[in-house]
Amino acid sequence: MSCGARPGDRPRAREFGLRIGNLEPGRFNAITDVEGVLVGQETVWFGEGPLRPGAGPARTGVTVILPHPGNCFLDKVPAAIHVINGFGKCMGIEQVDELGTIEGPIALTSTLCVGRVTDALVTHAIRMNPDIGIRLSTVNPVVGECSDAFLNDMQGRHVHEEHVLAAIANATGGPVEEGAVGAGTGMSCFGFKGGIGTSSRRIPAASGGWTVGVLVLANFGRREQLVIDGVPVGRMLEVAPGSPERGSIMMIVATDAPLLDRGLRRIARRAGFGLARTGSIAGHGSGDVVIAFSTSPAVRMPEVAPGLVIPVEIVAEGVTAGGVNPIELLFQATIEATEEAILNALFKAQTVTGRDGNTREALPLETVGRMLRAAGRIA
Amino acid sequence: MSCGARPGDRPRAREFGLRIGNLEPGRFNAITDVEGVLVGQETVWFGEGPLRPGAGPARTGVTVILPHPGNCFLDKVPAAIHVINGFGKCMGIEQVDELGTIEGPIALTSTLCVGRVTDALVTHAIRMNPDIGIRLSTVNPVVGECSDAFLNDMQGRHVHEEHVLAAIANATGGPVEEGAVGAGTGMSCFGFKGGIGTSSRRIPAASGGWTVGVLVLANFGRREQLVIDGVPVGRMLEVAPGSPERGSIMMIVATDAPLLDRGLRRIARRAGFGLARTGSIAGHGSGDVVIAFSTSPAVRMPEVAPGLVIPVEIVAEGVTAGGVNPIELLFQATIEATEEAILNALFKAQTVTGRDGNTREALPLETVGRMLRAAGRIA
Amino acid sequence: MSCGARPGDRPRAREFGLRIGNLEPGRFNAITDVEGVLVGQETVWFGEGPLRPGAGPARTGVTVILPHPGNCFLDKVPAAIHVINGFGKCMGIEQVDELGTIEGPIALTSTLCVGRVTDALVTHAIRMNPDIGIRLSTVNPVVGECSDAFLNDMQGRHVHEEHVLAAIANATGGPVEEGAVGAGTGMSCFGFKGGIGTSSRRIPAASGGWTVGVLVLANFGRREQLVIDGVPVGRMLEVAPGSPERGSIMMIVATDAPLLDRGLRRIARRAGFGLARTGSIAGHGSGDVVIAFSTSPAVRMPEVAPGLVIPVEIVAEGVTAGGVNPIELLFQATIEATEEAILNALFKAQTVTGRDGNTREALPLETVGRMLRAAGRIA
Amino acid sequence: MSCGARPGDRPRAREFGLRIGNLEPGRFNAITDVEGVLVGQETVWFGEGPLRPGAGPARTGVTVILPHPGNCFLDKVPAAIHVINGFGKCMGIEQVDELGTIEGPIALTSTLCVGRVTDALVTHAIRMNPDIGIRLSTVNPVVGECSDAFLNDMQGRHVHEEHVLAAIANATGGPVEEGAVGAGTGMSCFGFKGGIGTSSRRIPAASGGWTVGVLVLANFGRREQLVIDGVPVGRMLEVAPGSPERGSIMMIVATDAPLLDRGLRRIARRAGFGLARTGSIAGHGSGDVVIAFSTSPAVRMPEVAPGLVIPVEIVAEGVTAGGVNPIELLFQATIEATEEAILNALFKAQTVTGRDGNTREALPLETVGRMLRAAGRIA
Repeated sequence: MSCGARPGDRPRAREFGLRIGNLEPGRFNAITDVEGVLVGQETVWFGEGPLRPGAGPARTGVTVILPHPGNCFLDKVPAAIHVINGFGKCMGIEQVDELGTIEGPIALTSTLCVGRVTDALVTHAIRMNPDIGIRLSTVNPVVGECSDAFLNDMQGRHVHEEHVLAAIANATGGPVEEGAVGAGTGMSCFGFKGGIGTSSRRIPAASGGWTVGVLVLANFGRREQLVIDGVPVGRMLEVAPGSPERGSIMMIVATDAPLLDRGLRRIARRAGFGLARTGSIAGHGSGDVVIAFSTSPAVRMPEVAPGLVIPVEIVAEGVTAGGVNPIELLFQATIEATEEAILNALFKAQTVTGRDGNTREALPLETVGRMLRAAGRIA
Repeated sequence: MSCGARPGDRPRAREFGLRIGNLEPGRFNAITDVEGVLVGQETVWFGEGPLRPGAGPARTGVTVILPHPGNCFLDKVPAAIHVINGFGKCMGIEQVDELGTIEGPIALTSTLCVGRVTDALVTHAIRMNPDIGIRLSTVNPVVGECSDAFLNDMQGRHVHEEHVLAAIANATGGPVEEGAVGAGTGMSCFGFKGGIGTSSRRIPAASGGWTVGVLVLANFGRREQLVIDGVPVGRMLEVAPGSPERGSIMMIVATDAPLLDRGLRRIARRAGFGLARTGSIAGHGSGDVVIAFSTSPAVRMPEVAPGLVIPVEIVAEGVTAGGVNPIELLFQATIEATEEAILNALFKAQTVTGRDGNTREALPLETVGRMLRAAGRIA
Repeated sequence: MSCGARPGDRPRAREFGLRIGNLEPGRFNAITDVEGVLVGQETVWFGEGPLRPGAGPARTGVTVILPHPGNCFLDKVPAAIHVINGFGKCMGIEQVDELGTIEGPIALTSTLCVGRVTDALVTHAIRMNPDIGIRLSTVNPVVGECSDAFLNDMQGRHVHEEHVLAAIANATGGPVEEGAVGAGTGMSCFGFKGGIGTSSRRIPAASGGWTVGVLVLANFGRREQLVIDGVPVGRMLEVAPGSPERGSIMMIVATDAPLLDRGLRRIARRAGFGLARTGSIAGHGSGDVVIAFSTSPAVRMPEVAPGLVIPVEIVAEGVTAGGVNPIELLFQATIEATEEAILNALFKAQTVTGRDGNTREALPLETVGRMLRAAGRIA
Repeated sequence: MSCGARPGDRPRAREFGLRIGNLEPGRFNAITDVEGVLVGQETVWFGEGPLRPGAGPARTGVTVILPHPGNCFLDKVPAAIHVINGFGKCMGIEQVDELGTIEGPIALTSTLCVGRVTDALVTHAIRMNPDIGIRLSTVNPVVGECSDAFLNDMQGRHVHEEHVLAAIANATGGPVEEGAVGAGTGMSCFGFKGGIGTSSRRIPAASGGWTVGVLVLANFGRREQLVIDGVPVGRMLEVAPGSPERGSIMMIVATDAPLLDRGLRRIARRAGFGLARTGSIAGHGSGDVVIAFSTSPAVRMPEVAPGLVIPVEIVAEGVTAGGVNPIELLFQATIEATEEAILNALFKAQTVTGRDGNTREALPLETVGRMLRAAGRIA
């Protein structure tokens, strides 16, 4: 699991001087600012030189997001999945649509690894709940994916059960490594190196004080489309001709606001607004998918309900007696955190060389800085 | 508003000896068995002989279902709409999908009258809430429709604001008039006279004791398709050749079980299973739509929320600690009540002659009785 | 129908120096650049001073878009409707979803007028096709709406059948009046005067040479959210405190590219990306809806098919043998034209004073111009 | 891969004397009556006695349906997936929804094996198209599942890549083995042994002469719910008390009628009507999913389109000049074939004893025959 890229060397968008939107981020400016959310990542990186299909080089991995530290199968979280463009191979959408819950870790990985990662999540669920498929129901693994074909030997499907279980085991709160790490190892974004990015926003205490955290696997876009905080950086860069990207983006939105599936679906749809502001056109070949969940204890859904009814509390949608419309602040928080999470993936990712010597350059910070300064977006 | 048909003369399916399913109906075997639900109907019936487009004869009307006797705009009920086949012109689906609530009476009418009935519901909402469109938001009228073209001068759009307001004003609980009445006046079902039908089911007290009530506007099907309690009556009847029906069915499902939009959508989908059992194929030209709502005080949604969160209680989906799966009993109740409501429309509707002397015969009870007895379905 | 605003006095966004995106607009930079599309508008404007609910003042109207100059009921166009946020009261969605076609003019109006405008479209359809509801099927009117409550006596529902029929009768190709006109008369956008805006894009001949035209009814957003070509103009403006807008936006997308409903749904989803770039968060109370249709003769759907099968041609999705991905260029065209259409609504709309002396100021072009110049967006 | 059950010993529903519906079946009364469709099955059956989780006994398998004998990735078929109840873990829905195509074999298996079977389909696709994930796009495997927990060691996930590849390799046209075979090996239906069933219908030549074939993996329902050709057989049987079934059903609908995704979605929805007629209530824990595709050469979708547009032919929906409504006959064919396919699964499946000595009895044909004769459904 050595990794040639050292993400620590580069600034996050905010460290670079950008201020996306109006709301304040949480402590780590990460999805883990949402109480209880844990992130674990395993990078699979071996081999150099020509592609030998099935044998490497590998530039791939897996990233897992745990909705809470407990047993999610017994103690499910409300969730919704919104598909912006469905050229993708996610696992688990059907049941989330029907039941409005997620019952285990969400895993992100390389497209052709979805089967193996799904299987690994089943192994994990069985270990946690040895009665699954015997006295308990079956489990619904949720897996998202993007294609790392440009850098990685995809056919090799180098993400194995051990990597998934390790990512779950090492999942923690606090700062999240960004860029070319975990599922982001081989990903590209706007023709630059992309991968994992995260950000968060807090809404004012008088409006609920809730946090929204977003983690993205950013792997989409053509260079000329890139917009940073409204500045069409991509159009200003000298763009080398190249084949169009077959990109995708997975966006995971967590919040501690008490919302059920319908409210979370509304939140999920707003992630697309953050995506749009980075210049994405949700290209034909893109699997652009948002998974949103709530960690609030007020909306937990038990595998076996203690009684015939379940008491819950949900955020008021619409104006409240206090004159506040809390759901709209959650919308805004989602949009801002999504935009910044994508920028963080770009800002943090180092240049990576993969199969056949294919190289994806890191975002050129100096050039970009000049453009942003000229437009008045950074000091 | 005289009405040639006398629905009182014919038996309901259950009076005829049929027992659809296993669960017991409520007191009136009607949607009004769900506490608080009111039904009002106005029949528009004038003229005889040749069609003079715009001038009659009229065989049409409006049926309204009030989710509760209070001010629905201020005190909304959770709701979901499920479209089985969308060759229809319902009003109000978009907002019910988004917000999961209904905020006024549901009206059923003749297809081309949807605009006028929508406008009348706006008038009603403004009278109840004089600040709508000024200091309050706008209102979302919900209107369903079927085509009564065979008997009625549809182009005349003979349902006016006065009829809608009268139907709302005269809405009551208790027994519901069925057959050729209100919106059902000009409707046809399986080539016989159809129209309004209703039924209900109660689930056992140990499983919640909730009631499901269904009201249908039945206007679909070709004669040879008719199935009564599993007996292919239609195929056994001598069928006169005729043009295919352009039918539709609106199914309104009410329950006092505390369910939000997602649970109600699941309930709504099961109404289609009751429909299928009557022989429907959901034909190409059919607008087959289900509107489900919950009257439970535990899930009411106020126009202005008193605080940032709203406490609610929802039926546990899945097995409970008591070993009961209450949602499945609600599914079964919905299926049984839908099937019986459709049969009630057929059993109760009298023969009606309308425009151009077009005549829709009542279901021939004697012949049907012989077939059901031979198959062992009635004594 | 006098109208205090003189939209001709103000520049369109492009005349102001803005260049949104990379593709070139069509001849009129309007939805009417799509061959055969006609637009008609009627403004309803009377009264001054205090609101007398039901009596005025009126600042409202209707805008109609005709997919082609012929009889749309007999010669339907493929279509799709995409709901971004469904706090809206559109008419006709259900059937467009099911059958994938539109069979008449699309009308836009004030929220509470949807019933009356629906009824007027039925009148129009019957005049064109006197057998509707007799020997022919019924007709599916398509109506979109936004709330003009701030300026207009909404309860009065001042858009009548005569206005709708006049708008259809006077519909033409060529330049489209923008701003406070037709359905846009009483609308607000980002706290400024909004209303009707339009724009178009042509994709290169080698990629099909098709045109995408967009017309919007822009009525959404809070002042501080406004972004013009990436510049957060709204945040820089001195914002007076005020009640949150209850906005909405209707986006009509026309193209001569041969697409069926699925392709058009993909196009429709991209309009939301253009919307996002103007700063919208698709607020809770917003009805944000996209209606897309294709005028291509290669995909027309007849009311009565001549044979058992219908031959059509559809745009290849994905890469073609020529290396071109035409659908992606249509995506980009839609995004650019939507963003520019919204800006055109803002740039063209004059200040309007309505009920109770409520005044919605026009976008302050001088201030905005300074900001855009400082950011390098205009010369 | 020995298999204790000998499906050949029992009659199919039609051989038993039942006539479901009005249309005639194709030559084999099987999904393979649709030109080009191939079916392959591998049964995994080993061990007896107590469950040793992970080690057996195994009563499971895989069934694959190939849309055509060629390379589906290069030559895709239009498709649609309709979810009736989404308590399921299907793979591939998202992309079928977006692009309206299927690009490889459809596999059915045991719930917890979906990951492994997905991975095996990737292996198969790579073997057929060695450039997948290198110069070509990625592939979208489509996998459906039901739970065989009652008889099978599900945790063992005993369906491996070799079984999937063997099932694909041995796929053929002609008669299809039914009952406890392939994915059906461990499945239960209405408390009896269920599994694989198939049936087909042909519509008259004057209406197109097309064939609809259905294959089901039937694994749902409680004994008391079973209805056979309208006769409530389940309620008449002495029902032993037992735990509620956690069932599911996968329904695969093939047709040579030229339909695109929208038409196929309409077809798919009608499969639910056939399901409803067997007594299903689409229980809470049921994953009830329909996958429909068209084999018609007139609607094939190439991976790389030769030009900017693709010519296709689609079935006319609505009445044609000849007075025929071909889509409605396809609806009816789908409903009839689905109902009969489910009955065939029940009629053909032999008693199977699995893990922990759990035994699922075959449908008792003698008793059932008496009931059907008494009701006049068989001679």
